[in-house]
Amino acid sequence: MTPAPRRIRLDLAYDGTEFAGWQVQPGRRTVQGTLEAVLSGLQGGRGTYVRGAGRTDSGVHARAQVADAEVDLALDDERLAHALGGLLPRDLRPLAVRTVDPAFDAQRDAVGKVYRYRLDRSRRGNPFLARYALHHPYALDGVLLARALERLPGRRDWSGFTASTCEVRDRVRHVTEARFEQPTAEEAWFTFAADGFLTFMVRNLVGTLLALAGGRLAPERFERALAEGDRRLAGPTAPARGLCLEQVLYRPAGAACSMAGR
Amino acid sequence: MTPAPRRIRLDLAYDGTEFAGWQVQPGRRTVQGTLEAVLSGLQGGRGTYVRGAGRTDSGVHARAQVADAEVDLALDDERLAHALGGLLPRDLRPLAVRTVDPAFDAQRDAVGKVYRYRLDRSRRGNPFLARYALHHPYALDGVLLARALERLPGRRDWSGFTASTCEVRDRVRHVTEARFEQPTAEEAWFTFAADGFLTFMVRNLVGTLLALAGGRLAPERFERALAEGDRRLAGPTAPARGLCLEQVLYRPAGAACSMAGR
Repeated sequence: MTPAPRRIRLDLAYDGTEFAGWQVQPGRRTVQGTLEAVLSGLQGGRGTYVRGAGRTDSGVHARAQVADAEVDLALDDERLAHALGGLLPRDLRPLAVRTVDPAFDAQRDAVGKVYRYRLDRSRRGNPFLARYALHHPYALDGVLLARALERLPGRRDWSGFTASTCEVRDRVRHVTEARFEQPTAEEAWFTFAADGFLTFMVRNLVGTLLALAGGRLAPERFERALAEGDRRLAGPTAPARGLCLEQVLYRPAGAACSMAGR
Repeated sequence: MTPAPRRIRLDLAYDGTEFAGWQVQPGRRTVQGTLEAVLSGLQGGRGTYVRGAGRTDSGVHARAQVADAEVDLALDDERLAHALGGLLPRDLRPLAVRTVDPAFDAQRDAVGKVYRYRLDRSRRGNPFLARYALHHPYALDGVLLARALERLPGRRDWSGFTASTCEVRDRVRHVTEARFEQPTAEEAWFTFAADGFLTFMVRNLVGTLLALAGGRLAPERFERALAEGDRRLAGPTAPARGLCLEQVLYRPAGAACSMAGR
């Protein structure tokens, strides 16, 4: 294979515990920084920019993050995936490498994301979930919780549930799913799908829902946080460790073609 | 509750990754050392010895380790379990605390143990299994593996599968179960039950079975390791991270009573 610059889509899974988030920060171990260092090494030192679909916070995990990068390598996709598998650390794994249209943009082209927040409902905490779930053995009012979750889907300004540091101007997002389930006796999951999420949005929603279902936050206050967009009305930010980016959604390849003229 | 010395049975789960094994070692973070420090703190500095059913190696996990200790505390079992839950780190959890017969000895009274060794069979490795399983995507010959596992149950001298540092003289153990299963597309488990295990015995068995089923160790050599007890004949020691103490077996309370005269 003759080396020629090409754009690749990288599907990734990582345990975020020991990463200071996605984005490159000087002197910190980040997912983007680790990927760029390994790709740069494969390219004999020539650097490359790795663009992620979403910038996960410090400590947040991903089961299927998507990124893209331009590479100039004499390795086909399969061999590059194999090389990355060998060079990347055990807590950051390449799931797939695919050569894509040079115009592919993992961030801009994403039409939706799915996040899951895991709770460890065991009495004393399961040590094998400690990195991946919030230990929350406290009672939850299922009726209050269900009612609040029903209120979430829809398009609205989510200012009431973002970080004060969030620099995005347009805070309107379309939440398409907000679900709570108990897959085992020991675990409970919140799942949220939307066309996009603001900084801390899922963690603030979870912190608020736990406070509400635990009787520590009045339903009226939750309603006002939704309606008025005042962050001070909502509950606390749930810890990063329970959160995982489960899926990034793109238009099917066929649909993307029909948009070639945009 | 008036403080009076009593013996407690402690059921524990731990993620062994960040422990230098069970046994106290100066300057190292160990499971026994962590438990003794916390119990000693609760007793206002009076130390206590925590005896484990088995001394798991550095990096080995436990889903249900059993230990015992004499405590002198004004907390009943339930409150003590709660206090331990609050004071112990997230990677070492108390499952239960029970006041037991003063003669209870978690180590000597154990009549059996069950260990599991997990393999991550995914192509590139699942980062969420990296601490708890050996990534082993290589082909395994199911027929060779099944034949070898059938040879394991029984009472014999296991010198061929222990560490050269094992100081136990009597190396006869009764293996009652040796099983391989694939609970999901991604995982495979070895499970071993015996009345006791020698140092590194499970890890050496797993390393040998993987070498055998991978075509890197001749079945004749495996047979000789079993028969001749020469450690040099068996395969390598599998890494600690895949291993977990799943269960410690004791005689039912009724049966124990009938042995009171021993």
